[in-house]
Amino acid sequence: MKFITNKNSFLNGVNIVSKAIPSSTTMDILKYIKVSANNGIIKLLANDMDLAIETIIDGEVIENGEIALEANKLNVVLRSLPDNELEIETNSKKEIVINYDKIRNSNSYIGYLDTDEFPELPSYEKIDPLIISQFSLKELIRTTIFSTADNESNKIMTGELFEISGNVLKVVSLDGHRISIRKAELKESYNDKKVIVPAKALKEIIKILNNEIDNEVNIYFNDNNIVFEFDNNIIISRLIEGEYFKIDHMLSSNYTIKVNVNKKELLDGINRAIPFIHEGEKKPVKFNFENDSLKLSIVSVEGGNNDYINIEKEGSDVVIGFNPKFIIDALKVIDDENISLYMINSKAPCFIKNEEESYIYLVLPVNL
Amino acid sequence: MKFITNKNSFLNGVNIVSKAIPSSTTMDILKYIKVSANNGIIKLLANDMDLAIETIIDGEVIENGEIALEANKLNVVLRSLPDNELEIETNSKKEIVINYDKIRNSNSYIGYLDTDEFPELPSYEKIDPLIISQFSLKELIRTTIFSTADNESNKIMTGELFEISGNVLKVVSLDGHRISIRKAELKESYNDKKVIVPAKALKEIIKILNNEIDNEVNIYFNDNNIVFEFDNNIIISRLIEGEYFKIDHMLSSNYTIKVNVNKKELLDGINRAIPFIHEGEKKPVKFNFENDSLKLSIVSVEGGNNDYINIEKEGSDVVIGFNPKFIIDALKVIDDENISLYMINSKAPCFIKNEEESYIYLVLPVNL
Repeated sequence: MKFITNKNSFLNGVNIVSKAIPSSTTMDILKYIKVSANNGIIKLLANDMDLAIETIIDGEVIENGEIALEANKLNVVLRSLPDNELEIETNSKKEIVINYDKIRNSNSYIGYLDTDEFPELPSYEKIDPLIISQFSLKELIRTTIFSTADNESNKIMTGELFEISGNVLKVVSLDGHRISIRKAELKESYNDKKVIVPAKALKEIIKILNNEIDNEVNIYFNDNNIVFEFDNNIIISRLIEGEYFKIDHMLSSNYTIKVNVNKKELLDGINRAIPFIHEGEKKPVKFNFENDSLKLSIVSVEGGNNDYINIEKEGSDVVIGFNPKFIIDALKVIDDENISLYMINSKAPCFIKNEEESYIYLVLPVNL
Repeated sequence: MKFITNKNSFLNGVNIVSKAIPSSTTMDILKYIKVSANNGIIKLLANDMDLAIETIIDGEVIENGEIALEANKLNVVLRSLPDNELEIETNSKKEIVINYDKIRNSNSYIGYLDTDEFPELPSYEKIDPLIISQFSLKELIRTTIFSTADNESNKIMTGELFEISGNVLKVVSLDGHRISIRKAELKESYNDKKVIVPAKALKEIIKILNNEIDNEVNIYFNDNNIVFEFDNNIIISRLIEGEYFKIDHMLSSNYTIKVNVNKKELLDGINRAIPFIHEGEKKPVKFNFENDSLKLSIVSVEGGNNDYINIEKEGSDVVIGFNPKFIIDALKVIDDENISLYMINSKAPCFIKNEEESYIYLVLPVNL
């Protein structure tokens, strides 16, 4: 194998596919990146069996071939090289030689493995893609991903629901204490569809998506996997099997209390309670909504905080407790300057949502 | 106790004195900051028995008093507060109440301890200070501190020699593998003096010193301690007892080989060997000085690197091995674009120094 590329294109490609390199694995080959040069195209591939990422890098193929290189080693070696053209070729000692300075004849070389055991990119059907901008997809995921569950005791909670209905893509996540819902309008309408995508894969995908509204992603839905095609990348994630939770009955409540508040003031106020909450402790912050004032308070053995915030309230006064982290997580991903809270009483969930319901955050209260 | 200050001045003061808060200790009181309001002056003090730091913060004393507050708690609480004037007073429940919003009556409160057991600032004589700019002192320490020894098996190596001779302050550190020497000219001449200052204290002091050439530090030398007075701060460090190593005989060699090289090219070249060195392994990089070329090379089980750099050489060719970290550490703190290496043979130390010898870095070679 022999090809010419440049340091930045190669390193950028390695960074992209490395998102599918597991941090620990018993299968050594999964820590490797497949580098292939064929038919004039140089491709990188990593595949941890749940998530596979392939990308094409700039360059010129001189001699076809494919090899597997340890991802981390390749990354640190490339990072150490000058910002030059690289002439890369295999030698007879099963090494890949990276010539980074032809005049002075400088090179780095790394041992490689054959690709016989390397897991291929799963095959998929390229029909009827859903088209969305990279920016919108990234935002849908970023603003909901925090309320998926980390532990596997309920597999469904470790994923996000992607639900297509007409020209709307709705993304839902929940962890038993809260629900996050975001909707985006699409340019076209599609057949209804529901799939559950692993949060672990989505967390890596948003690192690769850029913020351009004009750059689009083609999404293909298959029986067992979902495919994201954008720029020079193909990302394929397994789906989580099973049916997602029915949440509609939880959203149809008749709120009796509505509160408008400045988002930054509320966020700052809640953050002032945090120094008095010990890690692992689930002590609630007391929210005392009284006329046009919200008093946030917390008491611990070392001290406490009382913070007053101006509000506009419709409905009765209410005293309600929340895990502050859950409210903070929601507020941090809302761009609006002023937000609305909807409540019924101190036992029922609180909703943070806008009029159009392009976002809905539901948080369960905690007994005081 | 009651005083008025502002968030930024208080937090800045807490950050400064917290450099003397030990990360772990069996004496609980050492994790506290003494806050005193007396005679119109608000002072903060922390003292881990080796290093004591006192600073004065802006504000107005309403009622004299002094208390001790847990440093970390005070820090996180202050950071959460708005950038306002703070009215601070003790209450009858042994709490300090920080009123940060008078209009809305918001406050945080923290339990305090009495100061009976708090270790005082050591007393010292304020005579004949050595005067140096904050910038120069910071640079002297920053460019030598890395070659002190971490472990306490040789106590002297855990400190830096401060040696005054006429109008020159020389700072020396060594760890058994290398020696770093920096000199600064002072505006005045002083009596000869030699003290050994703990590196642990110096690492904290350079975080507090700023980069202003016009801001001066007064240094007082006492039998057991060294005092740094600057801005609103007093920093007192214990000295290390004993006599420093005699190093002059190591510096008087007659070099037979002199090499001029671009510093960045050398640094980049050595850094390309690093991916092939495993942590904890003391594998040397081979430096092959031959005519007008330096070949750096490393071989490991996973691969290797060969890097060629243009040099100007006087004297014979030489092949010599170095621990790359030691050369990198020295190069990183040298500002010169081109540097000179002085050698005798593959067994003798290599010197990196300038003509004026304002810096001298000695590195012992490693057998290849």
